[in-house]
Amino acid sequence: MSDEVRLDLDEVHRLATGALRAHGASAEQARAIADNIRRAERDGAKSHGLFRIPFYVRTIVKGRVDVKAVPVVRDLAPAVVQVDSCRGFAPLALEVGADPLTEKASAQGIAAQAILNTFHIGALWPEVERMAERGLVAFAFTSSICFMAPAGGTKPLYGTNPMAFAWPRDGQPPLVFDQSSSVSARGEIMIHKRDGRALPEGWAIDSDGNATTDPDAALAGAQLPFGGYKGSSIALMVELLAGALIGEVFGFEEYARDPDDSVGGLGGHFMIAIDPLRCVAHGDRGAQLAHAEKLFARILELEGTRLPSQRRYSARTRTPTEGVTIPKSLHDTLLGYARG
Amino acid sequence: MSDEVRLDLDEVHRLATGALRAHGASAEQARAIADNIRRAERDGAKSHGLFRIPFYVRTIVKGRVDVKAVPVVRDLAPAVVQVDSCRGFAPLALEVGADPLTEKASAQGIAAQAILNTFHIGALWPEVERMAERGLVAFAFTSSICFMAPAGGTKPLYGTNPMAFAWPRDGQPPLVFDQSSSVSARGEIMIHKRDGRALPEGWAIDSDGNATTDPDAALAGAQLPFGGYKGSSIALMVELLAGALIGEVFGFEEYARDPDDSVGGLGGHFMIAIDPLRCVAHGDRGAQLAHAEKLFARILELEGTRLPSQRRYSARTRTPTEGVTIPKSLHDTLLGYARG
Repeated sequence: MSDEVRLDLDEVHRLATGALRAHGASAEQARAIADNIRRAERDGAKSHGLFRIPFYVRTIVKGRVDVKAVPVVRDLAPAVVQVDSCRGFAPLALEVGADPLTEKASAQGIAAQAILNTFHIGALWPEVERMAERGLVAFAFTSSICFMAPAGGTKPLYGTNPMAFAWPRDGQPPLVFDQSSSVSARGEIMIHKRDGRALPEGWAIDSDGNATTDPDAALAGAQLPFGGYKGSSIALMVELLAGALIGEVFGFEEYARDPDDSVGGLGGHFMIAIDPLRCVAHGDRGAQLAHAEKLFARILELEGTRLPSQRRYSARTRTPTEGVTIPKSLHDTLLGYARG
Repeated sequence: MSDEVRLDLDEVHRLATGALRAHGASAEQARAIADNIRRAERDGAKSHGLFRIPFYVRTIVKGRVDVKAVPVVRDLAPAVVQVDSCRGFAPLALEVGADPLTEKASAQGIAAQAILNTFHIGALWPEVERMAERGLVAFAFTSSICFMAPAGGTKPLYGTNPMAFAWPRDGQPPLVFDQSSSVSARGEIMIHKRDGRALPEGWAIDSDGNATTDPDAALAGAQLPFGGYKGSSIALMVELLAGALIGEVFGFEEYARDPDDSVGGLGGHFMIAIDPLRCVAHGDRGAQLAHAEKLFARILELEGTRLPSQRRYSARTRTPTEGVTIPKSLHDTLLGYARG
């Protein structure tokens, strides 16, 4: 099709890097982001692939992010590491924090990582997957701009606050889920708006607090948590972990600082990593992972069920040889960025 | 009313203790359970109050639980403590593990507790509240008998797997939520059955995997996760944490061992505790907690919202002076237990 461009994964990386470098990003910041963009395209996670580069660029152009930031690691406790992202994007801070988090989890059994002053506009699955590839169980939590109402509420207060979890597997990629606390991603509402389609019931309320299926009314109103008050509790937990616990802002505070932000604000991020070997008296990684495989096999035996991340891993087997496609208009935009 | 009996909270404790002691429970096992029963009645959490004693008694009568068990604490890692409940009930094991978990969290910044071989048929909020009263942020996870289908599935595989979270507050009880991974508690379905009422849509499927609002069909079929695949992911995470991670069984494995179990089987339990003071460079507990209060104030300002656990704490202010009521039939049953 003439309106699509086919790229191999190295080209994806080069396009991302070029766009970011042309906007002043340091080699390290650009590479860390481009690595994540390539991971997303590799896995068919298009909304976090090259499609996301204009979000990064807009955030840079606004001038609040430091695209040359060098993250600073501080040892806070035997089992806690802090990474000050210094107003840079999250991927480099997460990369720099991965080794200390791994070492602490292995030495102490469980460890936490607090990331400060970061712009996190990517998915969480790459970071928990990285820890699980090192044999650890991992959680990640990040708050975001307040677009979601608490259950029962009529105004936005929480971010769509995602949490992610990963479990290591032998000989294959980890089991991973990465899910927002809202029923739908905000991008899904934007896509409905673009396509002139009504939203499914239960996604959002309008600015008067009434249920709506109109995308414009939803974007002006508030998104709703998944599963009612239970999803709302998860969102509250994420606000506390990525906010007050680590000395960072809540979503509504960042919004007060920058009410125009529609991308992803400056804030905190929290991770936990656990070494399974240290959670039993005579750790046998093989046996623990083999045990988990029995549960996964049961899930796959059931009609209609699948493992979270299965779709991504299925794409991952194809894209290294088949490449990926992006709209020609996006390709033109990215080439334009790189020309500066 | 003649069909209800009013009790003060000490009488609640004595009734619970008497029933358990008459069934062979050691003084310590009985006291730890009775402490939790009193907490539940104090907070108006009737389903985990004296109403729950017959569940404990039935579990004892079945003969699988060791009602004189003395939990054994093992240090697994600087930040991980294991408590072998030795086939006893969970409350005493949780109590015995609370000090080592607190010490480890304070020393290392974050710590985990793995409880093995336990019958956990209580709520999770008392245990996370205890940790938060000590100034820690706490999580608890426990798996249970497999009554719930994974999202999209037609047969039960996961337990209704609750998770709980607590955040400390100055001068008032912690913020706590404790929620199952299923849309409804199993007990709620039983109450609908008792009252001859249809279930709300979305709670359950029948044994053929079709949506049902018939309580009998639901109990023979499977409960559904809250929020679809997102609640299902939470349930899967709980299975892994309270199961394979700590060397314990999954809900479906315990069910295979004891398919008659309709109460709560023998299995594992997992907790995480975090010291907020160790999660910032210059810990100031007062400032961190004061920051969280800003979020809580915002939640309470919104129309229609409340904090999780608010209803329990409201009951807590009344019951020490007003006492509580239980059905006369339950009171008779409990007195009958105590007479042996």
